[in-house]
Amino acid sequence: MTLAPPPAARAGDSLASVATPSLMIDLDAFDANLAAMSAFAARHGVALRPHAKAHKCSEIAKRQVGAGAVGVCCQKLSEAYPFAAAGIASIHVSNEFVGADKLAMAVELASHVHLSVCVDALPQVQALGDAAARAGVTIDVLPEVDAGQHRCGVTSEDALLALVDGIAAQSALRFAGLQAYHGGIQHVADWIARKAEASRAADIAARYVRALDVRGVRCGIVTGGGTGTVEFDAASGVFTELQPGSYLFMDGDYGGIGWGGEMRWRHSLFVLSTVMSATRPGMAVCDVGLKGLAVDSGLPRSVNWLGAGAKATFSYISANDEHGMLQAQHDAEGDFADLVGKRVLLLPGHCDPTVNLYDEYVCYRGERVTDIWPIDARGLSR
Amino acid sequence: MTLAPPPAARAGDSLASVATPSLMIDLDAFDANLAAMSAFAARHGVALRPHAKAHKCSEIAKRQVGAGAVGVCCQKLSEAYPFAAAGIASIHVSNEFVGADKLAMAVELASHVHLSVCVDALPQVQALGDAAARAGVTIDVLPEVDAGQHRCGVTSEDALLALVDGIAAQSALRFAGLQAYHGGIQHVADWIARKAEASRAADIAARYVRALDVRGVRCGIVTGGGTGTVEFDAASGVFTELQPGSYLFMDGDYGGIGWGGEMRWRHSLFVLSTVMSATRPGMAVCDVGLKGLAVDSGLPRSVNWLGAGAKATFSYISANDEHGMLQAQHDAEGDFADLVGKRVLLLPGHCDPTVNLYDEYVCYRGERVTDIWPIDARGLSR
Repeated sequence: MTLAPPPAARAGDSLASVATPSLMIDLDAFDANLAAMSAFAARHGVALRPHAKAHKCSEIAKRQVGAGAVGVCCQKLSEAYPFAAAGIASIHVSNEFVGADKLAMAVELASHVHLSVCVDALPQVQALGDAAARAGVTIDVLPEVDAGQHRCGVTSEDALLALVDGIAAQSALRFAGLQAYHGGIQHVADWIARKAEASRAADIAARYVRALDVRGVRCGIVTGGGTGTVEFDAASGVFTELQPGSYLFMDGDYGGIGWGGEMRWRHSLFVLSTVMSATRPGMAVCDVGLKGLAVDSGLPRSVNWLGAGAKATFSYISANDEHGMLQAQHDAEGDFADLVGKRVLLLPGHCDPTVNLYDEYVCYRGERVTDIWPIDARGLSR
Repeated sequence: MTLAPPPAARAGDSLASVATPSLMIDLDAFDANLAAMSAFAARHGVALRPHAKAHKCSEIAKRQVGAGAVGVCCQKLSEAYPFAAAGIASIHVSNEFVGADKLAMAVELASHVHLSVCVDALPQVQALGDAAARAGVTIDVLPEVDAGQHRCGVTSEDALLALVDGIAAQSALRFAGLQAYHGGIQHVADWIARKAEASRAADIAARYVRALDVRGVRCGIVTGGGTGTVEFDAASGVFTELQPGSYLFMDGDYGGIGWGGEMRWRHSLFVLSTVMSATRPGMAVCDVGLKGLAVDSGLPRSVNWLGAGAKATFSYISANDEHGMLQAQHDAEGDFADLVGKRVLLLPGHCDPTVNLYDEYVCYRGERVTDIWPIDARGLSR
């Protein structure tokens, strides 16, 4: 017996008939964001290596590479597999990893794609070098330096030099440059403050580059940057490669921060939901909660009715596992029973973990579904 | 080219070789919880219909039914499919739904299993009755009454009577009783306060039951209750059927509330994670963050080292998308570089949305993997 839920949508469907909840991409906005970042990187003469952890979708990665990206970043080795399988030729794993299972994935990936990885400890270098040599593959290695986030990365020039020497001692590894990423400053709301923080991070990276330079070690690549800081990173003269991910989607949290002149992003990612109950004054209950919306960066920022919808403006005020509570902002005594069955587009607070809850994007232009893109790296967190 | 990540683990593996992050079930604790709830329900003469939204796994549902459950609850129609496919014969969808896609799923499910559903609006009754009649299936219907949560459910006896009359007018629908569930009180920490709240919810349910009774309408089933209130619901004399889900796992949030004498649950659900970086004093970074841990009910409550581990006690203090920050509670100046590669079992704050992030449970007894159970309803939120 094959008993499985029907597909959420097919190309050509109206948005009014898409099964909910569904994760939606407004392709007009998406295309604009895709083109704008490619043009931005080209204008500033920096390589663009978008972060695939944001979208986890090989269809999107192919479009990024088609628009000029040199490859993609992944945050995990398992995450890289669907991109390698889809023909993305250059993948940077922008993170440390440890253990036999991880080494096995690294050498398998390196036999299919140009692979680079991050390290911040000497035993990792040795284990990776041994595994790569045994497998007969070569892996590019970029030590990570702590650019101020105090998460991963070396914290001294001596530790960096030890890694560089360790890499040089491994015939199957190649020193390719440095990674310097400060995730903590990406969402600083004040543009001036964010610029200052990005400048500090770039200065740290520059100090490490110089420390290697005086020892005759040249960093071919200095990679880092996120959507919130690319405009500063590109102008810093330090970074040769940028790793933004969220620019494609522009989630609720990023949408709320200040942006400079070159950065004009459109919201392209939404969750489509249906009102399935409305028995109380001023309230409606929609069919998406914690299992379809990551709330670590807050609840959905806007509730936009599809079609006629409600006259009142609603806010998404709380999420249960499978329910979302919508509250009328003014007409608190209104009877909204006739809203049952109506649909809303919700702007999620944080794109990356929201994307990781869905198996496909339902892509649309105007009121029509045009494509279904599998989120083929969904759940690949190892 | 088949290029896919290797499996996380195989039966017989040591926990030290399971790929991380992985979602783990301690089967000794799990079995104890499974047996305890079955015995509790039998002792109190109430039917047990555990909520499958918590575990989303047909292997677990089969064990629950094997231990005496009358079937399972699902929160969504799509979620019910893997349980129906696995042979669970009785499924209650404990939620309202609306729209042609949902009706199509309801009648398909009803042709394979004994299906009951909730309603709280008359148009839903009519649409469901029409769809069921067209498909030639019969569906049991349980109007939901608002037991104090102010989410879904009717809020007056008149509204309930209108639904009952509406159901009676549909030849393909059968009135089966009421659902009264108050999710908001499940996690009330104080046992006495929680008991009082549960009593209020049961009183509301009883009032609706009596209102129907005086009109000659008998509620065969009054279903509701969750892990936090079953001990009160079972004793209330109102509920004939209980819907707990989290008791199997006992997550961090539930573990922190007060429990009465009959309720003795063990933590059985953990996330296994590896330290992949430790370059700063007093800190270690593990390989699981927002994409492997739901944080809506807080960060992981405990960090237990697998094997020798660290001498210091650590707390999980913040989650990025793919990173977890572990901070030493006392030895803040210690150098923890030798922790890289060591493993921790983390107690997640909230089981349901954490489970929804994984594709399988890695089940273990002692230090050995014994089973891999697919989370076959993962992501089925429609």
